[in-house]
Amino acid sequence: MQTPLALSLGDPAGIGPEVAAKAWEQRVERGLVPFFVVGDQRSIEAVWHGPVARITDPADAIACFDEALPIIQVEDAGAIIPGEPNPAGARCSLDSLELAVGLTRSGAAAALVTGPVSKAQLYGIGFTHPGQTEFIAERCGVSKDKVVMMLAGPTLRAVPITTHVPLKDVLDHVSVDLIVARARTTERGLVRDFAIENPRLAIAGFNPHAGESGALGREEIELIAPAIERLRAEGIQVEGPLAADTMFHARARAKYDAALCLYHDQALIPLKTLHFDEGVNLTLGLPIVRTAADHGTAFDIAGTNQADPGATIAAIQLAAFCAGNRARAA
Amino acid sequence: MQTPLALSLGDPAGIGPEVAAKAWEQRVERGLVPFFVVGDQRSIEAVWHGPVARITDPADAIACFDEALPIIQVEDAGAIIPGEPNPAGARCSLDSLELAVGLTRSGAAAALVTGPVSKAQLYGIGFTHPGQTEFIAERCGVSKDKVVMMLAGPTLRAVPITTHVPLKDVLDHVSVDLIVARARTTERGLVRDFAIENPRLAIAGFNPHAGESGALGREEIELIAPAIERLRAEGIQVEGPLAADTMFHARARAKYDAALCLYHDQALIPLKTLHFDEGVNLTLGLPIVRTAADHGTAFDIAGTNQADPGATIAAIQLAAFCAGNRARAA
Repeated sequence: MQTPLALSLGDPAGIGPEVAAKAWEQRVERGLVPFFVVGDQRSIEAVWHGPVARITDPADAIACFDEALPIIQVEDAGAIIPGEPNPAGARCSLDSLELAVGLTRSGAAAALVTGPVSKAQLYGIGFTHPGQTEFIAERCGVSKDKVVMMLAGPTLRAVPITTHVPLKDVLDHVSVDLIVARARTTERGLVRDFAIENPRLAIAGFNPHAGESGALGREEIELIAPAIERLRAEGIQVEGPLAADTMFHARARAKYDAALCLYHDQALIPLKTLHFDEGVNLTLGLPIVRTAADHGTAFDIAGTNQADPGATIAAIQLAAFCAGNRARAA
Repeated sequence: MQTPLALSLGDPAGIGPEVAAKAWEQRVERGLVPFFVVGDQRSIEAVWHGPVARITDPADAIACFDEALPIIQVEDAGAIIPGEPNPAGARCSLDSLELAVGLTRSGAAAALVTGPVSKAQLYGIGFTHPGQTEFIAERCGVSKDKVVMMLAGPTLRAVPITTHVPLKDVLDHVSVDLIVARARTTERGLVRDFAIENPRLAIAGFNPHAGESGALGREEIELIAPAIERLRAEGIQVEGPLAADTMFHARARAKYDAALCLYHDQALIPLKTLHFDEGVNLTLGLPIVRTAADHGTAFDIAGTNQADPGATIAAIQLAAFCAGNRARAA
């Protein structure tokens, strides 16, 4: 029997409810597998007038998915005004996330797709994790250091080894061990979630022209090359350090399955330059499949019917693809 | 009367001669204006069997361009073996550059397109400039600090404010003054060379998400915002600091005429991801128009007929376009 995917709606005042509803509208033409949303039904109704079906058991999503958007209700979020976040909404977004994670952990959902939350609002209600990913890792019993963010688009998968760190501090956070750990997790993710038998990794240099043999910086020699040596000794296929500017054009991308980058923009610039509307955030290293649309709450356009569900649809499709690969391998 | 462009052939053992000859072969289909090359005729003959016409006066290039590749010979480079650079070749590449610059300075050539040289070989014969650009600036009587490298492709123009600097040292080289100076030169270049009446500049942030109001770094607040303020006070249209990862997709690029970036890869990653085979290096701030194909000598493939003249053709086209704009404005 088919198992539906779980979508948390994110902040009820953001665009999460709208993009979830619009994704459901496109379920046939985009070939989406059945999913249900987790959140406050009124956040959907505030921005969308299609059919919604309250369910309590995820399995019921399968039967009603053709006719209505299935929703599992959490405690209500108080008054919802799109574009105007508040603490009740932040609590609702956290409840939705927690329930959706739990249902996926239990196997009642095949994979988790998370909607956009407001970190500022969550911090205001005492949330202490840097973001949803670390919360999910904890709920899955995985150290937050072990999970890896991958940004996946149709022609590029990129992994930033460090993420939300001031650029001048990046080197304080990078070590040979970290590069090796991130590469291992990426390799396993490519095998498990993408069904790539022998993944090929590429690692970007840190400096212009990958340091030109030390003339433009020594991080390639001192950090990246030793990491590559260890990875190769483990049998992992990895090229690098590659000059970052020449590794993302089409012919170069064809030579690897994922690119590892030392800092946020090195990974995110090429990904979003190529795949701005279809980039999916995939968390590797978890016992569950978790994806997210690579955009925020967009409070500025919430409630104006301008939100594009493209990234959410891509996140649903990728989650289904990865969950299918895991199920087949199991 | 039309004035031809000057192309220096670069290192005679590199791919410069081959791509120049192949560009000439495509002169009709690619609509190239007449040009002549400057270098050693034997470096062409070593890799190409088409017609070459020795000239001594650039003006003679116009009459013979339809039938043969016009060349102005410099002192010969000794034995030329493609792929095997040597000091005599380095001297030849420098002679070619110097003569081509002089002919462009004098007005005998309408613009300068430089072929790829080997910096390692040039340093070996006592060349003390970091690269061709600084040599050209000196010959033009412009301080090397005043010239600006722009990488131009069909849908993106990007200016790295620092270039070949280890990434961890970039901030030692950046100041509010430098950002302002680079932006001014870029703005004038867009007016003069691209005939854009009111150029729109965009400046990238340094940190992830442009620093998130200081949470992820303070360079946006301390360096970039003050520079923008000064530029706006001068009447220059400039947006920023923008999150670097979300400013290079198609809709974002449509909002500016050039992007200024604080470090090499921030500018070069999006440019080469989008326009790997057609990126042109344009030097702004010179009294002459100077472009170059954005690739090196490629000694590894020299003499094997594999070199793609696309970037050289793009460099010729852009040089002609800019020279035409300057001539019309004069």
